[in-house]
Amino acid sequence: MSEHPTAALDDVVHQRHRLGILTIAAEVKRVEFAYLKSTLNLTAGNLSRHIAVLEEAQLLVVEKGYDGKRPKTWVSVTAAGREALAVEMSALRALVERHGKS
Amino acid sequence: MSEHPTAALDDVVHQRHRLGILTIAAEVKRVEFAYLKSTLNLTAGNLSRHIAVLEEAQLLVVEKGYDGKRPKTWVSVTAAGREALAVEMSALRALVERHGKS
Repeated sequence: MSEHPTAALDDVVHQRHRLGILTIAAEVKRVEFAYLKSTLNLTAGNLSRHIAVLEEAQLLVVEKGYDGKRPKTWVSVTAAGREALAVEMSALRALVERHGKS
Repeated sequence: MSEHPTAALDDVVHQRHRLGILTIAAEVKRVEFAYLKSTLNLTAGNLSRHIAVLEEAQLLVVEKGYDGKRPKTWVSVTAAGREALAVEMSALRALVERHGKS
């Protein structure tokens, strides 16, 4: 029996809100904080905390700026972030294929 | 846009080691503690802690007994556990289909 697929999961990426942040951000060049907050239905504090974990791990970059006079925060996935997400997705695919039949 | 698939993930089931325990245990009538420990490469203490979380949530049942003179511990998934795992797997399948192309 090969190694169980969950061995390839990393809590930094696998945690459900961080997985949500990464999958959404990976689809676009950059994503706005408010969009993530509403799509994932998180509080600003909770979202900030998860973004900080991903930024610390260098999987995301955070940019602050203005849209007109309104302050905005955007996040974008780094190359390392895309790679980490690909590893996670590949492990999830293996898990679903192996155990998701029932 | 429908609700993001990560909204259906529950940390009790989604945490990677607990996901490993549940997916393995769901394939058989009951699974031995030592088998889970080696397959998931966990310490006894760490495995016990995660089993306790799943037992507390009534997703697993723990049985203690003997195999000859050797004490053994088995775990089996409850009906609620199978249901919770099915919800998780369905959310993971949606996530992989939606975001796992790259």
